[in-house]
Amino acid sequence: MDFADLIDERRSVHDYAATDLDHETVEAIIEDATLAPSSYNLQPWEFIVVSDDERRERLQEVAYGQEHVTDAPVALAVLGNLDPAAHVDRVLDDQVEKGYRDAETAAATRESIEEMTDLPKAERRVWSSTSTALAAMQLMLAARARGVATCPMGGFDPDALREAFDVPDGYEPVMLLTMGYPAEDADDETLPRKFRRPTSEITHHGSFDPETDAESDASEATPVDD
Amino acid sequence: MDFADLIDERRSVHDYAATDLDHETVEAIIEDATLAPSSYNLQPWEFIVVSDDERRERLQEVAYGQEHVTDAPVALAVLGNLDPAAHVDRVLDDQVEKGYRDAETAAATRESIEEMTDLPKAERRVWSSTSTALAAMQLMLAARARGVATCPMGGFDPDALREAFDVPDGYEPVMLLTMGYPAEDADDETLPRKFRRPTSEITHHGSFDPETDAESDASEATPVDD
Repeated sequence: MDFADLIDERRSVHDYAATDLDHETVEAIIEDATLAPSSYNLQPWEFIVVSDDERRERLQEVAYGQEHVTDAPVALAVLGNLDPAAHVDRVLDDQVEKGYRDAETAAATRESIEEMTDLPKAERRVWSSTSTALAAMQLMLAARARGVATCPMGGFDPDALREAFDVPDGYEPVMLLTMGYPAEDADDETLPRKFRRPTSEITHHGSFDPETDAESDASEATPVDD
Repeated sequence: MDFADLIDERRSVHDYAATDLDHETVEAIIEDATLAPSSYNLQPWEFIVVSDDERRERLQEVAYGQEHVTDAPVALAVLGNLDPAAHVDRVLDDQVEKGYRDAETAAATRESIEEMTDLPKAERRVWSSTSTALAAMQLMLAARARGVATCPMGGFDPDALREAFDVPDGYEPVMLLTMGYPAEDADDETLPRKFRRPTSEITHHGSFDPETDAESDASEATPVDD
C-alpha cells in the first residue's frame, strides 16, 4: 500500500470486529516500531501487551471506563524509561563497531548521556515521552499496514496503571493504545475524517512570526520569505 | 513502496546531496504529518521551516554546531503549543457536525480540555511533546516516502532557539530536524543499521514483570502468559 493511502486509512478506531489478533502479528508490529529513531538512539520504549479478559477489564478502569478497551482484543501500555543511560553501553559499542564513530567521540557522547541522568525528572519525562511517542506513531502505522486499527489514549490514571500492571517508578506511562481489526461499520472508518488544522496555519517561514521578524530584520540582506 | 521497506530505508541521515528541496515538497510532507493523531485531536504542532543560508547558520549554532544543519537544504524546528485549549472550538464543533458525538458529550469534553489548561507546566510539556512527536514521526516517514531523508535532533539549546527564531513562551521546542536528499555515500545509508533493542526485551506480557506477577497472582484463575 502507498504511504499516502496508509496515513489516510489510519484513523483512531473505537469499534472493533470480534476477531482475535494473534500474538505473532502483535510482535511483528512492535518489532516494526523499534526501527523508529530516538534521541541518541537510546530507545527508552517498553510495551505491556494486555489481552486476557480480566486484565483488559482492569485496564478499562485505569482508562476511566472507555469502552473500546475491552471491545478491542489487545491493548498496549506504552512506557518510557526515565533513565537515559539505561542502554548506553550497547548503543555506543555498536556505533564504534559498525564504523559510525571512533572510540573518542563515543566517549564524549557517553559523557553527555550520563550527564542527562542528572537532569530534573521533569526534563527526563519530556525526553522519554518524545522518543517513545516516535515509536508509538510508527507502531500505529505498522499496525494499519497489516489491516490492524489502533486508538491512542492519553486519558488514563497513571498511578492506577502503575499499581495494576506493576509499572516501576523509573518508567513514564506515555499512552495506552487499543488494537484490533476494525468493525465494518465503525464510525471512525465511515464518517469523514476529523478536522485538521491547515498546513498554512502551522507552517512558519524563517521564524515563528515572519512579519514581526521582517520588520526587525528589515536592514538585513537575506529575505525572510524563503 | 511497501511500509516494511519504507521503515527499513528511513535512517537518520547526516550527509546530504547538493540538491535543493523545493517548497512544495516540504509543504506536502508537513501536510502528511498533520494526519497524525493527537490527544483529543488538539494538534499542538507547529513547524518553522528554515532554508536560507543565514538562518541555517544561526540554527547550527543553536544545535551546538552540528554540521548537517547547514549541509541539509532545509531544517525544521518542531514546536508544541502548551495551551491545550488553543484550538478546542474548531476541534469539537467539527466532531458534532460530522456525527462523531452529540453536543452534550462535546460540552463534557470541552470541560476536560479546559481543565487541562490549569495543569502544571511540567504536565503540559509532556502532553504537548507527546502529541507533537507523533506528527514528527509521521513527517519523517512522509519525507522518506518522497525520497527525502531526515535527521531528528534532541541536542540543541532551547533558549537560543527561542531568541533566534522568535518562538513565544507558550510553545515547547520539541525537536529539530534536517531534511534533504541523502548523499549517495552517506554513512547512514551504506553502513549496517544501528543497534535496536530486541522485541523480546521491550515486550511485557500481562504486566511489566510477569514473573513477579505470576507469583503474587498464583491463585487467580486467569493465566498471565497471554
